[in-house]
Amino acid sequence: MSREELTKIILPEDKLPKFWYNVQADMPNPLAPGLNPQTKQPLTPADLEPIFARELILQEVSTERYIEIPSEVRELYKQYRPAPLFRAHRLEKALDTPCRIYYKYEGVSPVGSHKLNSALPQVFYNKIQGIKRITTETGAGQWGTALSLACKHFDVEAMIYMVRVSYNQKPYRRSIMELYGGKCVSSPSPLTKAGRDVLENYPDTPGTLAIAISEAVEDAISRDDTNYSLGSVLNHVCLHQTIIGQEVKLQMEMVDDYPDIVIGCCGGGSNFAGIALPFIPDKLAGSKVRLLGVEPAACPTMTKGVFAYDYGDVVGYTPMLKMYTLGHDFTPSGIHAGGLRYHGESPLVSQLYHDKLFEATAVKQNAAFAAAMLFAQNEGIVPAPESAHAICAAVDEALKAKEEGVTKTIVFNLSGHGHLDLYSYDRYLSGETEDIEFSCEDLEISLKTLPQV
Amino acid sequence: MSREELTKIILPEDKLPKFWYNVQADMPNPLAPGLNPQTKQPLTPADLEPIFARELILQEVSTERYIEIPSEVRELYKQYRPAPLFRAHRLEKALDTPCRIYYKYEGVSPVGSHKLNSALPQVFYNKIQGIKRITTETGAGQWGTALSLACKHFDVEAMIYMVRVSYNQKPYRRSIMELYGGKCVSSPSPLTKAGRDVLENYPDTPGTLAIAISEAVEDAISRDDTNYSLGSVLNHVCLHQTIIGQEVKLQMEMVDDYPDIVIGCCGGGSNFAGIALPFIPDKLAGSKVRLLGVEPAACPTMTKGVFAYDYGDVVGYTPMLKMYTLGHDFTPSGIHAGGLRYHGESPLVSQLYHDKLFEATAVKQNAAFAAAMLFAQNEGIVPAPESAHAICAAVDEALKAKEEGVTKTIVFNLSGHGHLDLYSYDRYLSGETEDIEFSCEDLEISLKTLPQV
Repeated sequence: MSREELTKIILPEDKLPKFWYNVQADMPNPLAPGLNPQTKQPLTPADLEPIFARELILQEVSTERYIEIPSEVRELYKQYRPAPLFRAHRLEKALDTPCRIYYKYEGVSPVGSHKLNSALPQVFYNKIQGIKRITTETGAGQWGTALSLACKHFDVEAMIYMVRVSYNQKPYRRSIMELYGGKCVSSPSPLTKAGRDVLENYPDTPGTLAIAISEAVEDAISRDDTNYSLGSVLNHVCLHQTIIGQEVKLQMEMVDDYPDIVIGCCGGGSNFAGIALPFIPDKLAGSKVRLLGVEPAACPTMTKGVFAYDYGDVVGYTPMLKMYTLGHDFTPSGIHAGGLRYHGESPLVSQLYHDKLFEATAVKQNAAFAAAMLFAQNEGIVPAPESAHAICAAVDEALKAKEEGVTKTIVFNLSGHGHLDLYSYDRYLSGETEDIEFSCEDLEISLKTLPQV
Repeated sequence: MSREELTKIILPEDKLPKFWYNVQADMPNPLAPGLNPQTKQPLTPADLEPIFARELILQEVSTERYIEIPSEVRELYKQYRPAPLFRAHRLEKALDTPCRIYYKYEGVSPVGSHKLNSALPQVFYNKIQGIKRITTETGAGQWGTALSLACKHFDVEAMIYMVRVSYNQKPYRRSIMELYGGKCVSSPSPLTKAGRDVLENYPDTPGTLAIAISEAVEDAISRDDTNYSLGSVLNHVCLHQTIIGQEVKLQMEMVDDYPDIVIGCCGGGSNFAGIALPFIPDKLAGSKVRLLGVEPAACPTMTKGVFAYDYGDVVGYTPMLKMYTLGHDFTPSGIHAGGLRYHGESPLVSQLYHDKLFEATAVKQNAAFAAAMLFAQNEGIVPAPESAHAICAAVDEALKAKEEGVTKTIVFNLSGHGHLDLYSYDRYLSGETEDIEFSCEDLEISLKTLPQV
């Protein structure tokens, strides 16, 4: 069928990529090294081994262009991958735009988001070196759910620290993590020193990913059989997510099309990196494709932050990474897109943004919900509030192109469904979701806590 | 790839069936006619026109073997169809069975279940004859959600009466119906005479589908611009669902396999009919394929009911249909598979069961939840509690075959996901789901209310 007719572009199972794409092979400017938080010297593998699997540490610094996906992981990918690329015929019609809009739907994963793409290899590499238990943090709960299922598949225990505001907003996130056999607690929790300190000083905190990371890392350090796992930010997580963009490129070829704009929402960055990184070689070879990351206006890391070394967590247990950051002490307002409430941005995404290969924009949550409603009522799928940010930017681009009288091909990453976020939609429909103004004053205070290097 | 390797069997979009299969062309014994509830004479189209679209009335009695799917409906089907057929590699391994187990996953529909297959054509046929508003009942909420989205697609108002126990168990069902633009109230409601009567006499009733149907029908009768829509039971609903089984047959051909057993859960019957009816011609031609309907032990319509004329609703507004029934007054215990709490069974399924072309079995809800957990932890997908009944029977058959040392090909209809049923899983995980013994005494009382014909 021609590209005008198809609604779903389905890649056959035997075309599932066999390698992840490692952008570190192609970056015009290499990443600044991570630093040991105590010595402030470049990280050595020995610094990371107490909490990360060896294979993941190697991937973190590898400059091999392609890294093979283990067959055990690839078999599990086949439960939901290749993921479909949809043509948004009805959304286009509703917008009356000349643009072709496509979305890559990662919500077909059994856990409902792209997060399983990295959870499976992370647990696998830990399992083969004998790790029995993995800790992690989760914002909206998408990552925690993915890690729970991946741990179940490889018979490893999962312990998840979930940011308090999301834990309360999304009560059934805990249920699904437990259904998969994981354990989930609200963070800050009394189980760690990091958690107890925050509870004592800020008993009413909504929690942040930075606090939950401190708890999960502290827990992992304290037990020999336990490692820690991160759902975004790090190079190896972005690497695993490149399966998304690689599939998209093959799918676009199937309908003889190529994007003018590729869009993903940005929290820690792995979602956007996943769809966008495989387009970097094209860009370096002269393609005019635009790669646009969308952050929440309440946590505008790239658009308002600074490019500097910072901790990944609130206490300073983690390495210092050079990234766009609002400061590890920054507490974003309790927006419903809990997965985007992170003070920092993946070093990979940050460096490429700094080098002007990526663009960034910020949208308010009510605009994101409005776009999500328009999308749901036309395409049927209820998007996760995080993914709604990507939709919002895609709609904006499609309307802009219409105004300019040009036809563009727009592709965005619909990274997950919102079936467990209906509480948030309820609040939006009742007019109870606020657009709290971003506070430059808070930012200034928070940036003062950046570590000196 | 060989059938042993593939995990997902994907039918290309251009192979989406262009016709529904109408089993009425092939039944060895035709259906007994529906009767007018007042005159007790065979129904005429004029009896049904006050609440149903003309095209649907024609489909109800048609004996054409194939009925064309309107192109407007087929375009919307393409947003999620053809639906994938999965090979349950990991479940097979967990059961250590020699059987090949496949499941047709209807949860890829944007509303999360097979119900959209009939909601789309029903709303379409109403729309083209000028209907502005459609009422319906919903048990678990799957049908109401599907009708809401279908109404949004065709710009028709949706009014949904949701069985009280489910309305309370699944709070976010209302949210998603409203997100799609539908209106949803708890049934019995004060909005109708039928509802008010029940509220007065049985203020603590958990509600039943039969009560909700009375309310929706009464509402539709009372307004000229309004029709009524039913999510199961009727012939035209089963007809629309045959797209499921037709796709399954094509998909099995793709891997050069053919089922020994086809399984679906049974409430009103359209889910089971959808996957099983397209196999009836094969059976009539001598195939040994077994077609197995699975009902809840709390509402065992085929396995404990009688084959007789009964009303579809509690008040007696609906036509009398010859079907397996527990009596329209029967109130099943408040099991979590709300979609299966219906006193009757589709006349089509009933007749074919009576003629021994279909088989039936009943399972208890805790056994169904246990099977669902096993499934979720291996295949990743969290099933709807209704679909869990089909899984339970599939697991039983696979274990029986293993004991007998035979290899069988088992296919079941995974009719929906359970993302909005996590409350029910929570209760199961906490040991709070009961297996209330089915009461033969209640049945005896209820059967006394069967209408005399």
